[in-house]
Amino acid sequence: MTVLETLPARHDHAPAYTARLGAARGDTVTLRLKTTLPVTQVQLKLLEHGEISEYPTTEIPPLDGEGRWFAFELPLIADRVRYAWSLITADDHLNLTMSGLHHTRRAYRDWFVYLSGYAAPTWTWSSVFYQIFPDRFRNGDPSVSVRNGEYEYAGAPVYQEVWTQPITREGDIHAHYGGDLPGVRAALPYLTDLGVNALWLTPIFVSPSNHRYDISDYRRVDPHLGGDAAFDELLHDAHAQGVRVVLDGVFNHVGSENDLFRKAFADVHAAERALFTWRPNHPVPYHAFFDVPTLPKLDYASEAAAREFLDGPDSVVRTWLRRGIDGWRLDVAQMLGAGGTDEGNLELHRRLKRAAREERADAYVFGERFFDAEEALRGDGEDAAMNYHGFGLPVMQWLSGRSLKFLPSRMDGHELVEILWDAYHVLPPEVALNQFNLLDSHDTPRALYRLGGSTVKLRAALTLLMGYAGVPCMYYGTEVGLSQSCEGAMPWCREPMPWDESQWDTALRADVQALVRIRRDTPALQRGALRFLHVESDAVAFTRTLTHADGRAERAVVIASRLEAHTLTLRLPDGAWCDARSGEVLHGIVALEAAGGRLLIQS
Amino acid sequence: MTVLETLPARHDHAPAYTARLGAARGDTVTLRLKTTLPVTQVQLKLLEHGEISEYPTTEIPPLDGEGRWFAFELPLIADRVRYAWSLITADDHLNLTMSGLHHTRRAYRDWFVYLSGYAAPTWTWSSVFYQIFPDRFRNGDPSVSVRNGEYEYAGAPVYQEVWTQPITREGDIHAHYGGDLPGVRAALPYLTDLGVNALWLTPIFVSPSNHRYDISDYRRVDPHLGGDAAFDELLHDAHAQGVRVVLDGVFNHVGSENDLFRKAFADVHAAERALFTWRPNHPVPYHAFFDVPTLPKLDYASEAAAREFLDGPDSVVRTWLRRGIDGWRLDVAQMLGAGGTDEGNLELHRRLKRAAREERADAYVFGERFFDAEEALRGDGEDAAMNYHGFGLPVMQWLSGRSLKFLPSRMDGHELVEILWDAYHVLPPEVALNQFNLLDSHDTPRALYRLGGSTVKLRAALTLLMGYAGVPCMYYGTEVGLSQSCEGAMPWCREPMPWDESQWDTALRADVQALVRIRRDTPALQRGALRFLHVESDAVAFTRTLTHADGRAERAVVIASRLEAHTLTLRLPDGAWCDARSGEVLHGIVALEAAGGRLLIQS
Repeated sequence: MTVLETLPARHDHAPAYTARLGAARGDTVTLRLKTTLPVTQVQLKLLEHGEISEYPTTEIPPLDGEGRWFAFELPLIADRVRYAWSLITADDHLNLTMSGLHHTRRAYRDWFVYLSGYAAPTWTWSSVFYQIFPDRFRNGDPSVSVRNGEYEYAGAPVYQEVWTQPITREGDIHAHYGGDLPGVRAALPYLTDLGVNALWLTPIFVSPSNHRYDISDYRRVDPHLGGDAAFDELLHDAHAQGVRVVLDGVFNHVGSENDLFRKAFADVHAAERALFTWRPNHPVPYHAFFDVPTLPKLDYASEAAAREFLDGPDSVVRTWLRRGIDGWRLDVAQMLGAGGTDEGNLELHRRLKRAAREERADAYVFGERFFDAEEALRGDGEDAAMNYHGFGLPVMQWLSGRSLKFLPSRMDGHELVEILWDAYHVLPPEVALNQFNLLDSHDTPRALYRLGGSTVKLRAALTLLMGYAGVPCMYYGTEVGLSQSCEGAMPWCREPMPWDESQWDTALRADVQALVRIRRDTPALQRGALRFLHVESDAVAFTRTLTHADGRAERAVVIASRLEAHTLTLRLPDGAWCDARSGEVLHGIVALEAAGGRLLIQS
Repeated sequence: MTVLETLPARHDHAPAYTARLGAARGDTVTLRLKTTLPVTQVQLKLLEHGEISEYPTTEIPPLDGEGRWFAFELPLIADRVRYAWSLITADDHLNLTMSGLHHTRRAYRDWFVYLSGYAAPTWTWSSVFYQIFPDRFRNGDPSVSVRNGEYEYAGAPVYQEVWTQPITREGDIHAHYGGDLPGVRAALPYLTDLGVNALWLTPIFVSPSNHRYDISDYRRVDPHLGGDAAFDELLHDAHAQGVRVVLDGVFNHVGSENDLFRKAFADVHAAERALFTWRPNHPVPYHAFFDVPTLPKLDYASEAAAREFLDGPDSVVRTWLRRGIDGWRLDVAQMLGAGGTDEGNLELHRRLKRAAREERADAYVFGERFFDAEEALRGDGEDAAMNYHGFGLPVMQWLSGRSLKFLPSRMDGHELVEILWDAYHVLPPEVALNQFNLLDSHDTPRALYRLGGSTVKLRAALTLLMGYAGVPCMYYGTEVGLSQSCEGAMPWCREPMPWDESQWDTALRADVQALVRIRRDTPALQRGALRFLHVESDAVAFTRTLTHADGRAERAVVIASRLEAHTLTLRLPDGAWCDARSGEVLHGIVALEAAGGRLLIQS
């Protein structure tokens, strides 16, 4: 059940309603509820050692002067405290959960959840990320580029591709365009001008392919990207300009040229043998990522694997955090496990996160989980997941009328809102705010291509991205209209960034810049609670509300249509609303142009 | 999203769609799908080590000659295999899950689940249970009854109450009416005449109170109930008449007169000390059930506790199964845990279930879980739970317009159906079929009292009980119109069974007899899949469908209204339907009297 703005009761994670997040187990936290229902009594229901206890609440003066407010001191009796509110009127009684107001108790997954002692990174909430695929972003030092035939890999020579040459199927793995870290460093002014303040770099360690997910040496930056020195310089300059850097942690599999694998493969008595899962009578005699022989899968039944990569004293995770990075994006996080499977996955992520936090208290650790990640997102493992399931896939499917694989889809706005809410409402709030939202990536078709080249629809998509709960990330080049030449995902979605400005859609870039600025200037978009405001087949609107401890609410309304032109009629919540781009002031029932998306801020 | 009968695709647990349940991990199982959509392709989506794989299916001749059918050999790669169907048409594609047809992937909790190697008890599916509170059902041997002042308990003497004397607050714990096991044995002809074929007895072991949840000796039947010999005789005769017997396992706490607790309390150095959780500066210096001093809570941090009660070679669980009982109802199953909490709860239940199954392969082990039990019902722990959450509470709230605590409720049929489906759809199918459905019990107000004495509404409730997915259980006396004298639950809901037939509502009893017979004669009601057919504020209807391996479907329609008179118009599924009571034949759009409930069978 999607919760609408008009629901006559409110409780969320913001300070007016939850005094603080992350308090320790054993502490108490003040919770508050606002309602306009004619309640005779309000109780708090607490899940206590398997039993639901009901406690009285105290009526307090309305923080914002409106409605009636009730408070309760929540005892943090567990790592995950589950609670709901009970609202009793003269002729009815209702339960308020993350699913809204119901007469029935609802399943626990719908209840509010408080994570005791979980300190979420919060710098992420005010960050706008930009994803860089290093070989394709910018060549800052041609002297380090891969040379034609410099080495062979998987039976074929690598080669240097001309920056402006379109991608070919043949170049999938072997074509190196020459992007590097000095290039990223040189582009920092471009990036800060665009407004982004955090980078996710896909892998930068020594690897034979252009994508570098087949890592030979996790402790050295690839010399073809400029090596360790270039990395340190980039990190230094990025931090100096207020830009955070997150690296890509490939801990499910290594490259077949990795020393650990070479030793294991060469000698059945090698200690490294235990790091992999062997299957003698199989064409690929060891478990590998989708059976690709160059990507042998690590076996975390081996404690040595866990210590080398995750949480040993000098693990890969620790080493690069010590070196200064701000977090890890975890490649195929859902696959890590023992014996060629995902067995023990969640415990491995708990270990990884603990080690990361020991190195850096605000490290941002998020998993690539292309699918439903609910079970992994309980606070003890990753801070969040790449939000394909609960944002990127449904949003792009609705906007494009096609699935990720270009199958036609008649999904409408009602179903979009249903899946967005379903995914959002089961997450602890600080996890939901850290979900890594994206429209596309190096693993999916580019957004503009999926949208048939419509920059109007792309603007709608970007409005949703900047407006939604979670951390927005744009894939490099989106802002200038970079697309792709063929239907599909890889390798087509990895075209080099055009640096010839005559190829840019400068109007789009200006609009992206404006959207990023609004996101970075608007705390309600960074930390506000989510509710839906309006739903129809071709348009959706939602609110983001950040209510401060003194009752003052900062609010935003986010509107998107999937049409090229769309005069949308909807009722705005009470008060005057200001279009964050045009400055136009709106209130009450309005008919506005929704195509391309709108962001309204409570003025 | 509630799944309606009209959904144009079907897959469920019955043999036509799932060739067999409980196949071993490593085996394969044939799955089938029927659809009337113009599909161009049907795929099966399998959650495989964290990744969704898509497999082609094979079109097969329609088993029932209708629509189009597709088959897939499901490899049982895990203990819980998650899958969905993908239906592709010329202009759309849809996912079929337990939530119905959606354009989006849906959360995994909505996917179909196959439990590998889980052998559910199935005798339960054709059973109708009857709950007996031994002190209040029938006195078969006055010579063993508690005598006035025979002993003191919790500071007051016990006393014998006259069978026909109404319950008083004072008699809550101390008034013994004298019901016993010889009485139950004598009533077996009554029970089999009513049609019930399984009994759940609340505790029968040596205990000072009339409810016997404060057990002094788990290895002896209370002499005031006739002792061990009476129990053996009852069990023998019950089995001889085809009646199963399930006992009540009180494993969260013992009675304070239990030897284990006495020794622990008397001597801080006693080995038994470890079985309880001590808290020196508390008014009750040990953890106890709701802080009631006479009910000290067991501490399963102690392995000795787990072995004594759950899975040691001569544990209580094993001992009584060896003695011949058919299963265990587990009192406050959600509370069991370590250190005064529910910590480790699910693992304790896994151990308990394994031990029970070693003693008896078809033992039925179900927990009292008054609340949402989803997390406990994954097949490895209890077979099922008492279904207060997903059946009894919402059904009775809707019918009565009041909560369990008599608060007024404006809940309507739409919300009833929503919560029923929400609770049903997340369970593995054989667990859903084993959910222990009930309207009331010794812990809740009696159904007839909650329904304001309306036997019309009670008939509707009993129709839902006999028609719904899960194992029905009636509380003793319901069939003759037993009610209670005061608002509340305990002690009022425990009036003695009237054996003076002039006090019986014989028309009600005849109707109950008929409903029980229909349930026992109708495999679709015992094992059929559930879908909803019709919903309005005051009425609901659902189908139960059991499709055999040859495509032949047995079907039932269950209809209930909460009004005293209600001409309901609805469209029946294709074919002719026969009223199971009156024999009336119906088809198409019908206007029928729904008050009191209707059961239609496909003829």
